[in-house]
Amino acid sequence: MTEVILMNFRPCYLFDDLTDKHVNQIISITREITVKKGQRIFTEDEEATALYIIEEGTVELMTKIEDDFEMPITILRNPGDCFGTSALIEPHIYSLSARCVADGALLGIERSALQQLMMKDHEVGCTIMRNLAQHYLDRLKQTRQELKIHFRTLFRSVHS
Amino acid sequence: MTEVILMNFRPCYLFDDLTDKHVNQIISITREITVKKGQRIFTEDEEATALYIIEEGTVELMTKIEDDFEMPITILRNPGDCFGTSALIEPHIYSLSARCVADGALLGIERSALQQLMMKDHEVGCTIMRNLAQHYLDRLKQTRQELKIHFRTLFRSVHS
Repeated sequence: MTEVILMNFRPCYLFDDLTDKHVNQIISITREITVKKGQRIFTEDEEATALYIIEEGTVELMTKIEDDFEMPITILRNPGDCFGTSALIEPHIYSLSARCVADGALLGIERSALQQLMMKDHEVGCTIMRNLAQHYLDRLKQTRQELKIHFRTLFRSVHS
Repeated sequence: MTEVILMNFRPCYLFDDLTDKHVNQIISITREITVKKGQRIFTEDEEATALYIIEEGTVELMTKIEDDFEMPITILRNPGDCFGTSALIEPHIYSLSARCVADGALLGIERSALQQLMMKDHEVGCTIMRNLAQHYLDRLKQTRQELKIHFRTLFRSVHS
Protein backbone atom coordinates (compact mmCIF):
# COMPACT_ATOMS: atom_id res chain seq x y z
CA MET A 1 0.00 0.00 0.00
CA THR A 2 2.71 2.53 1.03
CA GLU A 3 4.75 1.56 -2.03
CA VAL A 4 1.82 2.19 -4.36
CA ILE A 5 1.34 5.65 -2.80
CA LEU A 6 5.10 6.36 -3.00
CA MET A 7 5.05 5.56 -6.73
CA ASN A 8 2.34 8.20 -7.24
CA PHE A 9 3.92 10.69 -4.82
CA ARG A 10 7.32 10.87 -6.45
CA PRO A 11 6.24 12.54 -9.73
CA CYS A 12 4.43 15.29 -7.75
CA TYR A 13 6.40 18.57 -8.08
CA LEU A 14 5.58 19.52 -4.48
CA PHE A 15 7.84 16.77 -3.17
CA ASP A 16 10.84 17.33 -5.47
CA ASP A 17 14.12 17.09 -3.51
CA LEU A 18 12.50 15.70 -0.35
CA THR A 19 14.30 12.71 1.18
CA ASP A 20 12.54 9.30 1.33
CA LYS A 21 12.24 9.79 5.11
CA HIS A 22 10.33 13.03 4.60
CA VAL A 23 8.13 11.62 1.83
CA ASN A 24 7.24 8.68 4.08
CA GLN A 25 6.23 11.11 6.85
CA ILE A 26 3.83 12.76 4.40
CA ILE A 27 2.51 9.39 3.20
CA SER A 28 1.65 8.58 6.83
CA ILE A 29 -0.86 11.50 6.82
CA THR A 30 -2.31 10.67 3.38
CA ARG A 31 -5.61 8.90 2.68
CA GLU A 32 -6.87 7.25 -0.50
CA ILE A 33 -10.22 8.44 -1.89
CA THR A 34 -12.23 6.66 -4.60
CA VAL A 35 -13.92 9.13 -6.96
CA LYS A 36 -16.64 8.87 -9.61
CA LYS A 37 -16.97 10.56 -12.99
CA GLY A 38 -18.78 13.90 -12.53
CA GLN A 39 -17.95 14.15 -8.81
CA ARG A 40 -17.00 17.65 -7.63
CA ILE A 41 -14.00 17.57 -5.29
CA PHE A 42 -14.19 21.23 -4.26
CA THR A 43 -15.59 24.54 -5.45
CA GLU A 44 -13.88 27.91 -6.03
CA ASP A 45 -14.01 30.25 -3.00
CA GLU A 46 -14.67 27.42 -0.49
CA GLU A 47 -12.30 26.97 2.46
CA ALA A 48 -9.32 24.90 1.30
CA THR A 49 -8.97 22.09 3.83
CA ALA A 50 -6.95 19.55 1.83
CA LEU A 51 -4.73 19.12 -1.19
CA TYR A 52 -5.04 16.23 -3.64
CA ILE A 53 -2.81 14.10 -5.84
CA ILE A 54 -4.05 12.00 -8.76
CA GLU A 55 -3.46 8.29 -8.35
CA GLU A 56 -5.72 7.27 -11.22
CA GLY A 57 -8.29 9.12 -13.33
CA THR A 58 -8.75 12.62 -14.77
CA VAL A 59 -9.59 15.88 -13.01
CA GLU A 60 -10.64 19.17 -14.61
CA LEU A 61 -9.89 22.51 -12.93
CA MET A 62 -12.30 25.33 -13.77
CA THR A 63 -13.16 28.93 -12.90
CA LYS A 64 -16.58 30.58 -12.93
CA ILE A 65 -17.13 33.08 -15.77
CA GLU A 66 -20.92 33.41 -15.47
CA ASP A 67 -23.43 31.75 -13.11
CA ASP A 68 -24.07 29.06 -15.72
CA PHE A 69 -20.61 28.84 -17.29
CA GLU A 70 -17.32 27.57 -15.83
CA MET A 71 -14.23 27.97 -18.03
CA PRO A 72 -11.81 24.99 -18.01
CA ILE A 73 -8.32 26.06 -16.90
CA THR A 74 -6.49 22.74 -17.10
CA ILE A 75 -6.96 18.96 -17.21
CA LEU A 76 -4.87 16.76 -14.93
CA ARG A 77 -4.50 13.12 -15.92
CA ASN A 78 -1.07 11.93 -14.79
CA PRO A 79 -0.41 10.09 -11.54
CA GLY A 80 1.34 12.63 -9.30
CA ASP A 81 -0.50 15.66 -10.73
CA CYS A 82 -1.69 17.69 -7.75
CA PHE A 83 -4.35 20.33 -7.12
CA GLY A 84 -5.93 22.25 -4.25
CA THR A 85 -2.55 23.72 -3.30
CA SER A 86 -4.19 26.95 -2.06
CA ALA A 87 -4.77 24.83 1.05
CA LEU A 88 -1.13 25.63 1.88
CA ILE A 89 -1.49 29.39 1.41
CA GLU A 90 -3.38 31.91 3.55
CA PRO A 91 -6.31 32.68 3.52
CA HIS A 92 -6.74 28.96 2.57
CA ILE A 93 -9.45 29.46 -0.07
CA TYR A 94 -9.65 27.32 -3.24
CA SER A 95 -8.96 29.58 -6.24
CA LEU A 96 -10.49 27.10 -8.74
CA SER A 97 -13.09 24.31 -8.80
CA ALA A 98 -12.14 20.66 -9.35
CA ARG A 99 -14.33 17.97 -10.94
CA CYS A 100 -13.57 14.37 -11.89
CA VAL A 101 -14.11 13.63 -15.57
CA ALA A 102 -13.39 9.91 -15.16
CA ASP A 103 -13.69 7.35 -12.35
CA GLY A 104 -10.46 7.11 -10.39
CA ALA A 105 -8.62 7.43 -7.09
CA LEU A 106 -7.05 10.44 -5.36
CA LEU A 107 -4.59 10.84 -2.53
CA GLY A 108 -5.83 13.47 -0.07
CA ILE A 109 -3.64 15.28 2.48
CA GLU A 110 -5.33 17.35 5.18
CA ARG A 111 -4.00 20.90 5.43
CA SER A 112 -3.71 20.87 9.23
CA ALA A 113 -1.62 17.67 9.34
CA LEU A 114 0.72 18.83 6.57
CA GLN A 115 1.14 22.29 8.12
CA GLN A 116 2.02 20.68 11.45
CA LEU A 117 4.66 18.55 9.75
CA MET A 118 6.12 21.58 7.91
CA MET A 119 6.26 23.64 11.10
CA LYS A 120 7.99 20.81 12.98
CA ASP A 121 10.61 20.32 10.27
CA HIS A 122 11.48 23.58 8.49
CA GLU A 123 13.57 21.72 5.90
CA VAL A 124 10.39 19.98 4.67
CA GLY A 125 8.53 23.32 4.82
CA CYS A 126 11.24 25.18 2.92
CA THR A 127 11.41 22.56 0.13
CA ILE A 128 7.61 22.27 -0.33
CA MET A 129 7.15 26.07 -0.29
CA ARG A 130 10.01 26.56 -2.77
CA ASN A 131 8.45 23.95 -5.10
CA LEU A 132 5.05 25.60 -4.74
CA ALA A 133 6.43 29.12 -5.44
CA GLN A 134 8.18 27.74 -8.54
CA HIS A 135 4.93 26.15 -9.75
CA TYR A 136 2.90 29.35 -9.20
CA LEU A 137 5.52 31.40 -11.04
CA ASP A 138 5.30 28.98 -13.99
CA ARG A 139 1.49 29.26 -13.99
CA LEU A 140 1.73 33.05 -13.71
CA LYS A 141 4.02 33.19 -16.75
CA GLN A 142 1.64 30.94 -18.75
CA THR A 143 -1.37 33.07 -17.80
CA ARG A 144 0.50 36.29 -18.70
CA GLN A 145 1.35 34.66 -22.03
CA GLU A 146 -2.37 34.11 -22.71
CA LEU A 147 -3.09 37.75 -21.80
CA LYS A 148 -0.28 38.87 -24.13
CA ILE A 149 -2.01 37.13 -27.05
CA HIS A 150 -5.10 39.27 -26.44
CA PHE A 151 -3.07 42.49 -26.13
CA ARG A 152 -0.91 41.67 -29.16
CA THR A 153 -4.07 41.20 -31.27
CA LEU A 154 -5.41 44.51 -29.95
CA PHE A 155 -2.06 46.29 -30.53
CA ARG A 156 -1.88 45.02 -34.12
CA SER A 157 -5.48 45.94 -34.91
CA VAL A 158 -4.83 49.53 -33.67
CA HIS A 159 -1.48 49.86 -35.50
CA SER A 160 -2.37 48.16 -38.80
CA MET B 1 22.17 53.28 8.09
CA THR B 2 20.96 49.83 9.24
CA GLU B 3 17.91 51.45 10.86
CA VAL B 4 17.00 53.25 7.65
CA ILE B 5 17.22 49.95 5.74
CA LEU B 6 15.19 48.15 8.45
CA MET B 7 12.42 50.73 8.09
CA ASN B 8 12.19 49.97 4.36
CA PHE B 9 12.61 46.21 4.82
CA ARG B 10 9.74 45.69 7.24
CA PRO B 11 6.88 46.53 4.82
CA CYS B 12 8.30 44.03 2.27
CA TYR B 13 5.99 40.99 2.09
CA LEU B 14 8.96 38.65 1.62
CA PHE B 15 10.10 39.24 5.20
CA ASP B 16 6.69 38.94 6.92
CA ASP B 17 6.99 36.88 10.12
CA LEU B 18 10.81 36.87 10.14
CA THR B 19 12.40 37.71 13.50
CA ASP B 20 14.52 40.90 13.88
CA LYS B 21 17.59 38.64 14.10
CA HIS B 22 16.81 37.11 10.71
CA VAL B 23 15.97 40.47 9.11
CA ASN B 24 19.30 41.86 10.38
CA GLN B 25 21.12 38.91 8.80
CA ILE B 26 19.52 39.81 5.46
CA ILE B 27 20.33 43.51 5.92
CA SER B 28 23.99 42.54 6.34
CA ILE B 29 23.99 41.21 2.73
CA THR B 30 22.06 44.20 1.31
CA ARG B 31 23.55 47.13 -0.62
CA GLU B 32 22.04 50.52 -1.43
CA ILE B 33 21.90 51.57 -5.09
CA THR B 34 21.18 55.09 -6.34
CA VAL B 35 19.05 55.05 -9.50
CA LYS B 36 18.12 57.64 -12.12
CA LYS B 37 14.84 58.25 -13.96
CA GLY B 38 14.79 56.11 -17.12
CA GLN B 39 17.42 53.65 -15.83
CA ARG B 40 16.71 50.00 -16.67
CA ILE B 41 17.40 47.73 -13.68
CA PHE B 42 17.02 44.45 -15.58
CA THR B 43 15.42 43.05 -18.71
CA GLU B 44 12.97 40.14 -19.19
CA ASP B 45 14.70 36.80 -19.96
CA GLU B 46 18.08 37.88 -18.51
CA GLU B 47 19.68 35.81 -15.73
CA ALA B 48 18.17 36.92 -12.39
CA THR B 49 21.15 37.60 -10.12
CA ALA B 50 19.55 39.89 -7.52
CA LEU B 51 16.25 40.99 -6.05
CA TYR B 52 15.41 44.61 -5.26
CA ILE B 53 13.40 46.59 -2.73
CA ILE B 54 12.28 50.19 -3.21
CA GLU B 55 13.72 52.61 -0.70
CA GLU B 56 12.67 55.73 -2.58
CA GLY B 57 11.36 56.36 -6.10
CA THR B 58 9.11 54.60 -8.60
CA VAL B 59 9.74 51.47 -10.68
CA GLU B 60 7.66 50.18 -13.58
CA LEU B 61 7.52 46.45 -14.41
CA MET B 62 6.84 45.62 -18.07
CA THR B 63 6.61 42.71 -20.49
CA LYS B 64 7.46 42.72 -24.20
CA ILE B 65 4.45 42.49 -26.53
CA GLU B 66 6.20 43.47 -29.76
CA ASP B 67 9.83 44.42 -30.51
CA ASP B 68 8.91 48.08 -30.14
CA PHE B 69 6.21 47.82 -27.45
CA GLU B 70 6.47 46.82 -23.79
CA MET B 71 3.18 46.54 -21.89
CA PRO B 72 3.23 47.94 -18.31
CA ILE B 73 2.28 45.25 -15.76
CA THR B 74 2.53 47.22 -12.56
CA ILE B 75 4.00 50.37 -10.97
CA LEU B 76 5.81 50.09 -7.61
CA ARG B 77 6.13 53.27 -5.58
CA ASN B 78 6.02 52.32 -1.90
CA PRO B 79 9.11 51.79 0.25
CA GLY B 80 9.30 48.03 0.79
CA ASP B 81 7.80 47.12 -2.59
CA CYS B 82 10.05 44.43 -4.07
CA PHE B 83 10.75 43.04 -7.54
CA GLY B 84 13.09 40.64 -9.29
CA THR B 85 11.90 37.78 -7.08
CA SER B 86 12.45 35.24 -9.90
CA ALA B 87 16.06 35.44 -8.65
CA LEU B 88 14.87 33.06 -5.89
CA ILE B 89 13.27 30.56 -8.27
CA GLU B 90 14.94 28.19 -10.74
CA PRO B 91 15.89 28.69 -13.57
CA HIS B 92 16.66 32.20 -12.16
CA ILE B 93 15.45 34.20 -15.18
CA TYR B 94 13.69 37.58 -14.84
CA SER B 95 10.09 37.18 -16.05
CA LEU B 96 9.57 40.96 -16.51
CA SER B 97 11.66 44.07 -17.20
CA ALA B 98 12.13 46.81 -14.59
CA ARG B 99 12.74 50.52 -15.28
CA CYS B 100 12.91 53.52 -12.95
CA VAL B 101 10.37 56.21 -13.74
CA ALA B 102 11.75 58.60 -11.09
CA ASP B 103 15.13 59.18 -9.44
CA GLY B 104 15.46 57.14 -6.25
CA ALA B 105 17.28 54.50 -4.25
CA LEU B 106 16.96 50.71 -4.20
CA LEU B 107 18.11 48.00 -1.83
CA GLY B 108 19.70 45.13 -3.75
CA ILE B 109 20.20 41.60 -2.41
CA GLU B 110 22.43 39.21 -4.36
CA ARG B 111 20.77 35.87 -5.09
CA SER B 112 23.80 33.79 -4.09
CA ALA B 113 24.17 35.42 -0.66
CA LEU B 114 20.45 35.14 0.14
CA GLN B 115 20.29 31.52 -1.04
CA GLN B 116 23.25 30.67 1.18
CA LEU B 117 21.49 32.24 4.16
CA MET B 118 18.25 30.35 3.39
CA MET B 119 20.09 27.03 3.05
CA LYS B 120 21.91 27.58 6.34
CA ASP B 121 18.73 28.43 8.24
CA HIS B 122 15.70 26.55 6.88
CA GLU B 123 13.34 28.57 9.08
CA VAL B 124 14.31 31.71 7.12
CA GLY B 125 14.03 29.75 3.85
CA CYS B 126 10.61 28.34 4.76
CA THR B 127 9.18 31.76 5.71
CA ILE B 128 10.53 33.61 2.66
CA MET B 129 9.38 30.85 0.28
CA ARG B 130 5.92 30.74 1.89
CA ASN B 131 5.61 34.53 1.52
CA LEU B 132 6.77 34.32 -2.09
CA ALA B 133 4.33 31.50 -2.94
CA GLN B 134 1.51 33.54 -1.39
CA HIS B 135 2.48 36.58 -3.47
CA TYR B 136 2.65 34.58 -6.72
CA LEU B 137 -0.75 33.00 -6.00
CA ASP B 138 -2.22 36.51 -5.50
CA ARG B 139 -0.69 37.69 -8.79
CA LEU B 140 -1.93 34.53 -10.53
CA LYS B 141 -5.49 35.19 -9.31
CA GLN B 142 -5.29 38.84 -10.49
CA THR B 143 -4.00 37.81 -13.91
CA ARG B 144 -6.71 35.13 -14.23
CA GLN B 145 -9.22 37.83 -13.33
CA GLU B 146 -8.01 39.97 -16.25
CA LEU B 147 -8.26 36.95 -18.59
CA LYS B 148 -11.80 36.29 -17.30
CA ILE B 149 -12.84 39.79 -18.38
CA HIS B 150 -11.80 38.94 -21.96
CA PHE B 151 -13.59 35.59 -21.91
CA ARG B 152 -16.71 37.04 -20.28
CA THR B 153 -16.94 39.65 -23.06
CA LEU B 154 -16.47 36.90 -25.64
CA PHE B 155 -19.04 34.62 -23.93
CA ARG B 156 -21.63 37.42 -23.79
CA SER B 157 -21.08 38.42 -27.42
CA VAL B 158 -21.63 34.78 -28.51
CA HIS B 159 -24.71 34.27 -26.26
CA SER B 160 -26.45 37.62 -26.74
